[in-house]
Amino acid sequence: MTKAVDAILANYAYETPGVIANLRRLLEHGTLAGTGKLVILPVDQGFEHGPARSFAPNPEGYDPAYHPSLAMEAGCNAYAAPLGFIEAVASEYAGRLPLILKVNNSDSLGGPEQPHSALTSSVQDALRLGCSAIGFTIYPGSEHRNEMNEELRELILEARDVGLPTVVWSYPRGGELSKDGETALDVVAYAAHIACQLGAHIVKVKPPTAHIEQEAAKKSYKDVKADTLADRIAHVVKACFNGKRIVIFSGGVAKGTEEVLEELRQIAKGGGFGTIMGRNSFQRSRKDGAAILKEAMKIFGEAK
Amino acid sequence: MTKAVDAILANYAYETPGVIANLRRLLEHGTLAGTGKLVILPVDQGFEHGPARSFAPNPEGYDPAYHPSLAMEAGCNAYAAPLGFIEAVASEYAGRLPLILKVNNSDSLGGPEQPHSALTSSVQDALRLGCSAIGFTIYPGSEHRNEMNEELRELILEARDVGLPTVVWSYPRGGELSKDGETALDVVAYAAHIACQLGAHIVKVKPPTAHIEQEAAKKSYKDVKADTLADRIAHVVKACFNGKRIVIFSGGVAKGTEEVLEELRQIAKGGGFGTIMGRNSFQRSRKDGAAILKEAMKIFGEAK
Amino acid sequence: MTKAVDAILANYAYETPGVIANLRRLLEHGTLAGTGKLVILPVDQGFEHGPARSFAPNPEGYDPAYHPSLAMEAGCNAYAAPLGFIEAVASEYAGRLPLILKVNNSDSLGGPEQPHSALTSSVQDALRLGCSAIGFTIYPGSEHRNEMNEELRELILEARDVGLPTVVWSYPRGGELSKDGETALDVVAYAAHIACQLGAHIVKVKPPTAHIEQEAAKKSYKDVKADTLADRIAHVVKACFNGKRIVIFSGGVAKGTEEVLEELRQIAKGGGFGTIMGRNSFQRSRKDGAAILKEAMKIFGEAK
Amino acid sequence: MTKAVDAILANYAYETPGVIANLRRLLEHGTLAGTGKLVILPVDQGFEHGPARSFAPNPEGYDPAYHPSLAMEAGCNAYAAPLGFIEAVASEYAGRLPLILKVNNSDSLGGPEQPHSALTSSVQDALRLGCSAIGFTIYPGSEHRNEMNEELRELILEARDVGLPTVVWSYPRGGELSKDGETALDVVAYAAHIACQLGAHIVKVKPPTAHIEQEAAKKSYKDVKADTLADRIAHVVKACFNGKRIVIFSGGVAKGTEEVLEELRQIAKGGGFGTIMGRNSFQRSRKDGAAILKEAMKIFGEAK
Amino acid sequence: MTKAVDAILANYAYETPGVIANLRRLLEHGTLAGTGKLVILPVDQGFEHGPARSFAPNPEGYDPAYHPSLAMEAGCNAYAAPLGFIEAVASEYAGRLPLILKVNNSDSLGGPEQPHSALTSSVQDALRLGCSAIGFTIYPGSEHRNEMNEELRELILEARDVGLPTVVWSYPRGGELSKDGETALDVVAYAAHIACQLGAHIVKVKPPTAHIEQEAAKKSYKDVKADTLADRIAHVVKACFNGKRIVIFSGGVAKGTEEVLEELRQIAKGGGFGTIMGRNSFQRSRKDGAAILKEAMKIFGEAK
Repeated sequence: MTKAVDAILANYAYETPGVIANLRRLLEHGTLAGTGKLVILPVDQGFEHGPARSFAPNPEGYDPAYHPSLAMEAGCNAYAAPLGFIEAVASEYAGRLPLILKVNNSDSLGGPEQPHSALTSSVQDALRLGCSAIGFTIYPGSEHRNEMNEELRELILEARDVGLPTVVWSYPRGGELSKDGETALDVVAYAAHIACQLGAHIVKVKPPTAHIEQEAAKKSYKDVKADTLADRIAHVVKACFNGKRIVIFSGGVAKGTEEVLEELRQIAKGGGFGTIMGRNSFQRSRKDGAAILKEAMKIFGEAK
Repeated sequence: MTKAVDAILANYAYETPGVIANLRRLLEHGTLAGTGKLVILPVDQGFEHGPARSFAPNPEGYDPAYHPSLAMEAGCNAYAAPLGFIEAVASEYAGRLPLILKVNNSDSLGGPEQPHSALTSSVQDALRLGCSAIGFTIYPGSEHRNEMNEELRELILEARDVGLPTVVWSYPRGGELSKDGETALDVVAYAAHIACQLGAHIVKVKPPTAHIEQEAAKKSYKDVKADTLADRIAHVVKACFNGKRIVIFSGGVAKGTEEVLEELRQIAKGGGFGTIMGRNSFQRSRKDGAAILKEAMKIFGEAK
Repeated sequence: MTKAVDAILANYAYETPGVIANLRRLLEHGTLAGTGKLVILPVDQGFEHGPARSFAPNPEGYDPAYHPSLAMEAGCNAYAAPLGFIEAVASEYAGRLPLILKVNNSDSLGGPEQPHSALTSSVQDALRLGCSAIGFTIYPGSEHRNEMNEELRELILEARDVGLPTVVWSYPRGGELSKDGETALDVVAYAAHIACQLGAHIVKVKPPTAHIEQEAAKKSYKDVKADTLADRIAHVVKACFNGKRIVIFSGGVAKGTEEVLEELRQIAKGGGFGTIMGRNSFQRSRKDGAAILKEAMKIFGEAK
Repeated sequence: MTKAVDAILANYAYETPGVIANLRRLLEHGTLAGTGKLVILPVDQGFEHGPARSFAPNPEGYDPAYHPSLAMEAGCNAYAAPLGFIEAVASEYAGRLPLILKVNNSDSLGGPEQPHSALTSSVQDALRLGCSAIGFTIYPGSEHRNEMNEELRELILEARDVGLPTVVWSYPRGGELSKDGETALDVVAYAAHIACQLGAHIVKVKPPTAHIEQEAAKKSYKDVKADTLADRIAHVVKACFNGKRIVIFSGGVAKGTEEVLEELRQIAKGGGFGTIMGRNSFQRSRKDGAAILKEAMKIFGEAK
Repeated sequence: MTKAVDAILANYAYETPGVIANLRRLLEHGTLAGTGKLVILPVDQGFEHGPARSFAPNPEGYDPAYHPSLAMEAGCNAYAAPLGFIEAVASEYAGRLPLILKVNNSDSLGGPEQPHSALTSSVQDALRLGCSAIGFTIYPGSEHRNEMNEELRELILEARDVGLPTVVWSYPRGGELSKDGETALDVVAYAAHIACQLGAHIVKVKPPTAHIEQEAAKKSYKDVKADTLADRIAHVVKACFNGKRIVIFSGGVAKGTEEVLEELRQIAKGGGFGTIMGRNSFQRSRKDGAAILKEAMKIFGEAK
């Protein structure tokens, strides 16, 4: 137990020791153990975008055993996936590698304009499979956001009751949000804040752009420093209860290595708690995938 | 226990001692303890309007610890907030400062024309976090009002069973109400009355203007004194069971100090039970925020 | 226990003694005790039309204590109101004056074209507050009538289980009904019959006009005597299982005293079981309100 | 509503209006209505001692219709009996005469040394049958007292939830109590106090003798006035929360009229709230039974 | 909030904020607020020993209103009593004075050799009555201890779920324990430790004598300092998780004032967290009772 982890967990003093224990497992595993930083490998793209779009670039990824093995080799803090992928590996990995069961998922076969993920697994599954947390996606802005918020409210209560923390993927989308608005600084900060207010233990958002989407918010952003990504990350961290909730950032669509690493440097510089890197790792060869994950850990390990 | 508090609680004689105990905690805390008046600090704007619009004017407010500390310093009767903000401070403040858990919330990312807040926390959370009441928003006039009324009915029953009173934010909005109609005297009085009829223990509405929105109501208002805000407040108090239910008033959007204080003087003069003052306090510097809250207490403390 | 009450209760032989006991309480209370006739004071206008439209004509009515006191003074059989008004007086009046909890209510802030009342309280509330019956409004003709009928079905089952009878306000409205159609003889008789078929123990409708709304019904009404209101009341009584269900009539909008009394004489003459008189009593001064209620009792007391 | 009843009900301010309503029904019925005194007719002897021992002296009593008719004629506040007797009369009497459903009973076919009554009916039965209270017997001193106390705890909770008060017959018996000890002053006062502490709304005990049973209590009784029955009654009333719980006394075995009346005069003089008189009334002829009940009412009506 | 209270509550970090809030209410009320010390007034002797043995010495105590009024006047941290006594005062005192509902009780009408208290109220009662904690007695040594331990286990779980801490009265009795053994140092320390291990938040035991009851324990006590009561108290505090659980001491049977005060000085000197003083206060006149409670507070207030 390091001071960094101590300081973070102190912000969750309202929680039961069971929930704290699992947060601790995430923070005390892998290369970044004890630093208070996290690099998580998520593989829900098979469900979200279809198998070929996900795994054709590196066909090893069709095999569910590939991903936790990659996560272990690279030294990730945790591995997150939908039910089927977790079931396929739990016997071998639960207890060795923190597992996060993604309990709702959305497919892209005729996606609705107003997105709403389906509940695809349960808290009971997470216990049965030895997971350390559940994961849940909300789409702030969607016309279905009330239903999603209420599902999340029930799940957090249920998960806490059995000692599991909840990781919330908060993706603004739908309603009257423009495409650019989905990653606008005001909107990302807002989406992160909502997740924290709903009781998320860890929030995952996309790195924000400098765009401000909401007319009513423009005035408030006049004095918010937002020139560099690091500045914007710092603002999102502030929106997460002044840094008292763990917020991590995804990389989004696959891109060049240097581009990814520069983004991570900015996230680290801005005080982000880490990254959840999927396509940028498992769609490369095993060697390259492990390498970029390790680079990410190096960046966050050196932060602060 | 003062006569003022005794007299108010006698109007809730139908309630269990547990509900009475928590109403008493609200009335017997802070500078106004025992006067029968209340100044409450609410901070749900982060959820409702987004973090920057709420906290950029005074960035200390990003930190959830700021607000209950301000409430304590200023001598407020209670602090109200959504789940995340309450969780962040409950271990330190529950049992020292009455906490009101706001159990539904609405965001403004693409607000719907017919507003309907999401259930974001539960009675069980309120108990777990040591709160003294739950808070709930209804939007009379909205096409979704039936669903909201029914959610409220269930929550009041559930909360009573465990000794918790319910504070209702009653904001007319939606349907065929004009923008002006949302604060019209007839509409505000009506919205306050509906909340009382639904079983609210404390009602919170906006200060009404002299506008009368409903054609059918105009005749009834011919002889209702409505020239000053104090007159109009007195009418709303009358609509709350002739003053037998606690009704408090918000200040709405931030404005100049003298403007705020004059409004409070009118509220006090009209017999309002107090104010729930958010943006006008936490968006100022700590010194100025505490000062204006204390001014509010002075005004209500001297009333009657 | 009089023969008149005996004869009425014999029509409810299928009911449990608990439901019978509460019907008996309604029939054996007040000035008309034992006559088989009822005069009930209902005060749900605050919720339905707003406080000023309801109580400005006689501001004493803003106080929830006014109404049961008026009902007692005048000798009414029962007092009916929404949750808030009943809670405010139950400690003092339950067990002394039969109380009817109106468990659904509709406001007129932007009323929908297809009316549907919200559930605003519950059978559990009725027991907790010592009520003798629940009241429920259906809008036959509304596009939402199926939902209302189904809500009513559930409530009647639940209420019977705990010994409470159900009073149904049956107001044709919505759908393709014309404004005149809402009080047409065929429509009122139909609405009363539907309430009986749904299991209502007491039905409340408006006095019907001679208008026939439904084309398909016109032939059937050729030989129905409908010249006087008494004739038309007799037809509605017949529609209520040939007089085997208690049906009472409201007076609707406030009007002149003689007009009201003449209407009541016709209702009594036609075999109506009584009246539920709200605005025509509580919107007058206390003296006049009590006087008109007593006149009503005199009329029904002398009937048959 | 008289001041006497007001004063008594004020001691039950912690209760719901529903429970208060039914206590009020007991206190506001019959000849003693409004005096704050009660004469109740109980007929559970058929179950407790067998039909012939109960009804052979006056064979009209075999018929369950006899007893409520006697209670009505005499002007009793209520009639108490086991399930079967209540079912046999509820359709006719519920709502006219307050009924108390005795929900546990003990037979004397081979009575156990350590008495424990069987649960013979339920709160749901009481609602179904339109009763105003449930009745329950405990045997303080019995080795089975813990089970009885726990059954009572559950029943009081369940009954309160539906607005029913609980009358507790508290009969010390079993354990190491001597036969004389069952009516000893210390033991009767103790048994009454236990019933109050368990949450009984009305307690029924036997008139105590001057005997002190418990060695450990003798010192405490040195200064307790106990010469006359009135003195001893006063002590038992004091043991019932200083007179803040209703305590009534039975007459026990049948005896001569003057003996019964003298006992009642002492009970009234000592501040007892009334009597529950079974065998001394229903085992006489109807004329004599009604007469002695009326004498009892006269005595309590003139008390204080 | 003082450092003393902070330091104590830090030992309960595993608890929910709701349980912490109620512990804080106990520690932050009355004269000793903020000192980390407690003086509690318990009045369950009416149930445990009978009303005359409890209240004859000071007949004011027959009235349930006497005790919380005494507790308030004297400045106690809390008042503990069985259901009936709490119900009788909850409307007036809940929310003003921390109330502890004693949920099991034992009478002494023919006490069994193997003691086992009956469950006499519930967690639901505690919420309904606005209590801050529940109280429960175990009799370590009794042959029924397993049942009691299991009842306690269920109650602690249930109470925590709604934010209530549990105070455990731990009285060794029964089995093969000698009368002297019930207060033997080894036995008292053992009983206190068992309560802590069962999850008690506050433990209440009797001041131990220097006697060592268990043969097997004698060797272990050779080097335990036990000459003065302060020494022995220090040992019991150590047995309560090295002082990390709150342990308070009763005075037992009534005795002389100086004797009581000297005992309290020893308890304070030994590090006891306070006293729960019943008979030594409420069996004196009001003036003397309040005086001795205030003396107790003075002693604990000056400790450390």
